Amino acid sequence: MIRKLRPRAYDEAIYVGHYFRTGVPVVMDLSALPDAEARQMVDFAAGLVCGRGGDMDRLTDRVFLLLPAAR
Amino acid sequence: MIRKLRPRAYDEAIYVGHYFRTGVPVVMDLSALPDAEARQMVDFAAGLVCGRGGDMDRLTDRVFLLLPAAR
Repeated sequence: MIRKLRPRAYDEAIYVGHYFRTGVPVVMDLSALPDAEARQMVDFAAGLVCGRGGDMDRLTDRVFLLLPAAR
Repeated sequence: MIRKLRPRAYDEAIYVGHYFRTGVPVVMDLSALPDAEARQMVDFAAGLVCGRGGDMDRLTDRVFLLLPAAR
């Protein structure tokens, strides 16, 4: 299963964290966010991946794939 | 043991992640960073705490305490 999220505000970062923590790959589509909040979301996701292990790949300018570490 | 870090660039976020992952409380002093990078570091730390559990407390305007979850 892959979860696709298209947050409309930075405070939806909590959902990105939620799915990532449960081991689900998350496609994070930032195309609905202004630049400043998109930047915040990327930094949040970088911390998330650093904390739990896994990988973040940039698929397009505004779309990222977060892959949790294999368990 | 508490680790105090005073990063001078955003790419030092990796050290914050390193110590936090080992279960060490980290005092993150952002007073040496320009506003934009300080903001990035806070978002990174928020992701880190979201990913691993624990808490982030703001001690002063520019100093944060990151407490890893008890193991």
